[in-house]
Formats: sequence, C-alpha cells, structure tokens
Amino acid sequence: MSSANSDKFGPPKRFQDTSESVWVEYVALALKHKPKVNLGQGFPDYAPPHYVTEALSEVSHGNHLLNQYTRGFGHPRLVQAIAKLYSHLIGREINPNTEVLVTVGAYQSLYSAITGHVDDGDEVIIIEPFYDCYYDQIKSAGGVVRSIALKPTKSGVLSAADWKLDPVEFEKLFNEKTKAIILNTPHNPLGKVFKLDELEMIADLCKKWNVLVISDEVYEHMVFEPAKHIRINTLPGMWERTITIGSAGKTFSVTGWKLGWSYGPANLLRNLQLVHQNAVYTCATPLQEATAMAFEFELTRLNSSESFFKSLAVELTDKRDYMAKFLTETGFQVTLPEAGYFMIADWSHNADKVDLSSESDEFKDYRFTKWMTKNISLQGIPPSAFYTKPNKHLGENYIRFCYIKNDETLHDAAKILKDWYSK
Amino acid sequence: MSSANSDKFGPPKRFQDTSESVWVEYVALALKHKPKVNLGQGFPDYAPPHYVTEALSEVSHGNHLLNQYTRGFGHPRLVQAIAKLYSHLIGREINPNTEVLVTVGAYQSLYSAITGHVDDGDEVIIIEPFYDCYYDQIKSAGGVVRSIALKPTKSGVLSAADWKLDPVEFEKLFNEKTKAIILNTPHNPLGKVFKLDELEMIADLCKKWNVLVISDEVYEHMVFEPAKHIRINTLPGMWERTITIGSAGKTFSVTGWKLGWSYGPANLLRNLQLVHQNAVYTCATPLQEATAMAFEFELTRLNSSESFFKSLAVELTDKRDYMAKFLTETGFQVTLPEAGYFMIADWSHNADKVDLSSESDEFKDYRFTKWMTKNISLQGIPPSAFYTKPNKHLGENYIRFCYIKNDETLHDAAKILKDWYSK
Ligand SMILES: Cc1ncc(COP(=O)(O)O)c(C=O)c1O
Ligand SMILES: Cc1ncc(COP(=O)(O)O)c(C=O)c1O
Repeated sequence: MSSANSDKFGPPKRFQDTSESVWVEYVALALKHKPKVNLGQGFPDYAPPHYVTEALSEVSHGNHLLNQYTRGFGHPRLVQAIAKLYSHLIGREINPNTEVLVTVGAYQSLYSAITGHVDDGDEVIIIEPFYDCYYDQIKSAGGVVRSIALKPTKSGVLSAADWKLDPVEFEKLFNEKTKAIILNTPHNPLGKVFKLDELEMIADLCKKWNVLVISDEVYEHMVFEPAKHIRINTLPGMWERTITIGSAGKTFSVTGWKLGWSYGPANLLRNLQLVHQNAVYTCATPLQEATAMAFEFELTRLNSSESFFKSLAVELTDKRDYMAKFLTETGFQVTLPEAGYFMIADWSHNADKVDLSSESDEFKDYRFTKWMTKNISLQGIPPSAFYTKPNKHLGENYIRFCYIKNDETLHDAAKILKDWYSK
Repeated sequence: MSSANSDKFGPPKRFQDTSESVWVEYVALALKHKPKVNLGQGFPDYAPPHYVTEALSEVSHGNHLLNQYTRGFGHPRLVQAIAKLYSHLIGREINPNTEVLVTVGAYQSLYSAITGHVDDGDEVIIIEPFYDCYYDQIKSAGGVVRSIALKPTKSGVLSAADWKLDPVEFEKLFNEKTKAIILNTPHNPLGKVFKLDELEMIADLCKKWNVLVISDEVYEHMVFEPAKHIRINTLPGMWERTITIGSAGKTFSVTGWKLGWSYGPANLLRNLQLVHQNAVYTCATPLQEATAMAFEFELTRLNSSESFFKSLAVELTDKRDYMAKFLTETGFQVTLPEAGYFMIADWSHNADKVDLSSESDEFKDYRFTKWMTKNISLQGIPPSAFYTKPNKHLGENYIRFCYIKNDETLHDAAKILKDWYSK
C-alpha cells in the first residue's frame, strides 16, 4: 500500500463534533475581502501603552538568558507580580508558586481548567451567549454541556444589566453529575457585570452541589462607572472551589502576546498543571518578563488616576457612548455594555434594507454579517456563534461590534452606516 | 457544604497516570541547590545570534498591530518563510496555508499531532530512550504505548550510530491497531542521526501497515560531519503519511521563545488544527514576526558558510569533542553524538566514588544526578526518565549532559569532575 489510506486518519471521536471556529472563518473572510472597517475581532487598532512595548524592547536587549526556557508553571518574576496584584485585589495571600499558573493566553487557561477537571460524562454549565471555545473544550474533554441563556428582561433601550438568568431554570441545571460551571464576568459579548445577588445565587448552588467555578474575568479592568467588578472567589466559601482566569492580552492591550493565567487553590490548580506540562510545558520567557515589568509598574500606581486599569475604562466609556449613538441613529437597537469592549446590537429593524439571498448560511446573523463585509465593507461578528445549537436563534437578530478602536476608525464605521442607512 | 469536597476534584482518568515531569523536578532542584554548573536542561548559556534578538527589538518598536492577534494557524509572514525553507529542503512545493501549522514550541506540535490523531485504544510506537513528553501525550489521548529500545551494538568507545534497533523485534510491534510511530532524528538524548537504511526499514513497515509517522526533527540543523540528516518525508510514498516537526527555539538558539511548527499534507494537518484551535487558538504575534525575519535572513545565505545552520554545527562539534575528552579522562564512557547538543555518558565505572545512600529515588541515575547536584555542584539529567517503566534499568548507568554552553562553563564542568576524580 503506497498512499496513506485516509479513512484511518480522521480525527478521534472526541474531536468529531468540532466545527470551524467563527474566528478562523471570519479572519479568513477579512483577509479575503479586506473590509474598510473591521470591528470583528477583539483587539485595539491603536498602540498599546508605551511602557508595555518598551518593556519587550528592553528584554530583547537585556540578559540573553531571557531568551531561554524558564520555569514551566510560570516565570518566577511574573508569578510573583500576579500573586502580588491579586493578593491585594482579593484580600488573601496568594502563593506565587502553587496558586498561579501562566498559560498561552486566557484561552489555554480555559483549556487546561476544562481538560484538567472534566472527565467523561461530567456535566458543565455554561451561560449563553458564551465565548465560543467553552463549548468545544468541554466536548473534547468528554463532558456534557448544560446551558442556559441570559435573556433581556425588558424591551426598548437596554443595558447589559437587563440581561438576566431565570433563577428557576438555572437551579434545574444542577445535579449530582454537575462538575463545573463557567462564569464569564465581565461578560463577552454582552458587557454585563454580574451583580452581588446574581453571584450569590450562583455561589450558593455551587456550594450546595459541590461544583467547581471556572471564572473567566479577562475584562476585569475595563468596568465602567457605576458598575463594580466582583470576583466570585471573594464570596464566603468560594475561594476553595474557584479557578479565576485573566489575560495579559486584554489587561495591557496586547492580545498578540497570548499570555494569560489561572489562580486559585493549589489542589485545583494541580490538574491544570498536568495538562499544561503535557501540552506546552512552558510559555515564552521574553513575553513573561515584559508582562511582569508591566505589572510591576502598574502596581506602583494602582490607586492613582494614571493607573492604566482606570484610564482605559474611562477611554472606553467614551468609545462605547459614541458607538451606541451612531448605531442607534442608524436603526440598530443596542444593549449598552457595563464593561469590556464589545457591544451587541439588534439589526432586525434594518432587515428591509438588506438582501441576504446571496448568502447561504443557516443563521441570519451569519448572512447579515457576511453581507455587510462584502457590500458595505464593515465587519462584525455573528452572535449565534456564541449559542448552543438549540438556542442559536436567540442570537440571530444581533451583531457584535468591537469598540476598542481609534476614534477615526469608529468615525469611519459611523459614516459607512449613515451612508447606508440614509439610502 | 461549605468547603470543596476534594474527592470530586481529582484529575480525569486520562491524566491519572501522569507523574511529575523530570523537567519540573530538575528545574526545582536547580532553583533550590543552585549548582555551580548546570548541564541539565537543553539550552545555550550564551547569547543567541545578534540578528535574532535584534529582530524582536525591531518588532517591539515597529508596527503596533504586531502586538495583536494574528492568523490562528500561523502568522502569514512566518508560514510563508517556513514553507519556503522546507520546499527547498525537501524538493516539494509546500502550501503555507494548509500544510504548515505554527505551535507553542515543537512541544505543542507533538501534543497536537498525538491528541489530534490518537483515539482510545490506538497503538503508538516509540523508540527508547525518548523525549519524555511522548509517553504522557499518548496516554492522555487514550493511546497505548508500544516501545522498543535502541541498544549499543558493541562495547568500548561508542558512537551514537552504534545504537540500533533490532529489526526483528521492531517488526513485531506493528499490527492492525498501530496508528502512528514517533521518530526522533537527530535523536535526543543519544545524538543519533538515523541512516537511510534505518529510515527505509521504518518507512516500509509504515507503508505496509498504513501507519502515520510523527517525525520530531528539532535538531535538524545541528548535524556534524560526516553525518547527514535525512527527512523521512522525502522517502517514496512517505510525504502523505508524515507530519514533520521543527522548533524555532532549537533552530535559532532561543528555546524561551517557545515557537515551533508542523508541516505535512493538509489532510493530516487538519487534525492538528482542531486541537490547536481548541487549546490555544493562536501563537504570539511578535515572536512569530521576529522568527519570520530570522528565517528570511537565513534564506538569503543558506549555502554560504556563514549560514547559522552551518556555523552552529561547526561550533558544536568543538564543544562535543571537548566534553567527550574531559568525560573520558574522568572515568565516564561516552557515546559520541553525531548531532544535537546532548551527550550521554556511562558513569558506572565511577560508582565506587559516590555514596548514593543519602538519596532515596528508585533509579540509580536519579540518585547519581541528585548526588552530583548537591555534592559537587554539577547538574545533569537522569536518562531513565526517557524510558518506559520496564526498560528504565537500561538508562540507570547513564547521565545526560548538555554541551551547548560557553567554553568557560564547559571548562568549569571539566574542573569539577577532575577535582572529584583525582580525590
Ligand atoms: C471572554 C473571553 N475569554 C477568553 C478570551 C481569550 O483571551 P486570550 O487572548 O488571553 O487567550 C477572550 C478573548 O477574546 C474572551 O473574550
Ligand atoms: C526531541 C525534542 N523534541 C521536542 C522538544 C521541545 O521543543 P520546543 O522547546 O520547541 O517545544 C525538545 C526540547 O528539548 C526535544 O529535545
């Protein structure tokens, strides 16, 4: 037999469900159509803080050993800095060596937490809409996804705070087989910041059913007045059952650095370490050193108004308001985010202005976003990608835009939409 | 119930076999005892080529978008450069977009290849001694490890070429359930470069049994005259069943950058992409851009003697010879490597010079290496870590040293051993 009999080389059963990710598809779409304005993927199109890139430059000229392997579970200087920041933020001493793990972005923290804790048949609860990798990560670990959708509790002008869980429906998801829940606060794509009573409801059920919380808090430092970010690991009895995940990419506006971390009690982190040592062993040293330097600098000015964690939120509040205004003026119905850098908008009142018959996707929001990219050169993301199959219809009337963009970029987007709307 | 009932939070079955990796253990050992000379982990203690770190510095000052997410399966500029280099080296046009995947080091390529191809119960053949992660990666995918040891075919002064597979024993490993074999050439820790007849024997059995080859070639550019590196994907009928893996860390002496790649036919790479998009989604943009720049530079001087791929091999030949000499002079019996930067040496003739009773590890080479670190401040790695349990005894008389070190470092190692030996 001289050619590979490819029947034998399909993916293992645990990956057979995996489909093309919305990111792969929409990055390819953008590479192909080169939309004038891309508000799809979540990253700034302007420079990160100067001291952050300066730190990387310093490292590249500094001690040459920073180009070689470092400690597998996290570069010493970085785990120290992370432990110091969160010890301060949560009011509990965190051990940098046993209670912190540095990963390839928050993404690999999610992967390690799920792959390291979810066994065949374990149930994991997710809240829709959700950051799409949760679903495939649970499935590839052999887990069973149980999901519940946040739903707007009123109509008309909406705040992300108006999207809520139904407590009765929520409680029904818990049972003996529930291993974990993935919480995402501040929430992507809604921009919702879970309030104390909402977190208490979740915490009480997790304690009742002995359930692990994987808390994805990558937008923790972009919360707009008067909303307040509460870490669920600070609620009574919750530290011992919570793995909290953060991202240097989001924290310092350098998504391309792909550095993130998990922190939590050593016994829970142990399982993530096993996956980490199996999958990558260690993360890039120069980026870890530079990120440590950035944290150390921010630690010196945490309470000043110059703190990047404060100034970025102020900057984003303006951008949010600007986007909400031009979207509203062009017939979209927005949900005003309390945090983060995404906004979802209901486009269904503009349905009569588009002819989606040239697009063949199953879900309307895919057709609408593709139509937009190709016809008016503006890219957004279809939110049905963030729902389980039976609930995808809940996302079909929406589009997700990213607003951590230059004022000019946002202005261009406004112009494109106004020209189109006034036609 | 207020505290997490930890019985519920053990690792999933597929990770229950995983033990502490030798790297985690020996990095911790070094952090604790600070040996004067560490010849354990494989990385240079001198600066990488200037143009490589300069590229990173340029990137950190350059286009700020290079700090943001790039294409998930590989930064466009980097996959272009990789495709160009290997198209030249293997004499076949490689498609940068479908036949190359960029990963977090060669390590994550191995993980993605194994996790993406090995299903429950699939058998995977490995050759002992082996780079230790192969074993846990196969186990965590649900695979069954079948192994065979390379054995010295003579006694006395040895070359890595003298370590061989027994063809009869080897053939017996193949059967209907065999999914893949992991080949490592040039080989770590032996420094063996598989010869054409050895590769043909492997290739013929893989074709006969329709088996995938995962070829770990991270030391491909450090091959010493007169040995020649042959890529198994260039043998007849082998491209279509081979995934070949490389490492920027090894290629450019920047192990801390943790960038690697797989290349091979699109249908085989597809499975790796699924794992990649599940586990990390994308790799660090600035490091990918800088690595692309380094490749582009080397592509302009591939055939000149200045080519780093040539000059590094020359430099390493001298270091190898120096180390072989001082080890031989101090009672070790070395296996002279044909490639790479590791050497194994039989220490058993020095057994009467050490008292290992203070160490409690099961295997003698663990006891010997720990004794050395603690008592004469010189660190090496115990090769039994690179064998399956039933064969660990085959590694017990050896120690692995890394020689990609400053001449001074090597000189210090020689001095430590000479002082000890002459006592
Ligand atoms: C909710 C959420 N979690 C995780 C991530 C991934 O973060 P990283 O880039 O650090 O892997 C993102 C990125 O958009 C996100 O929105
Ligand atoms: C044989 C072999 N494969 C893979 C690797 C991992 O390479 P990377 O650092 O690029 O992940 C190593 C590192 O020592 C190795 O020796």
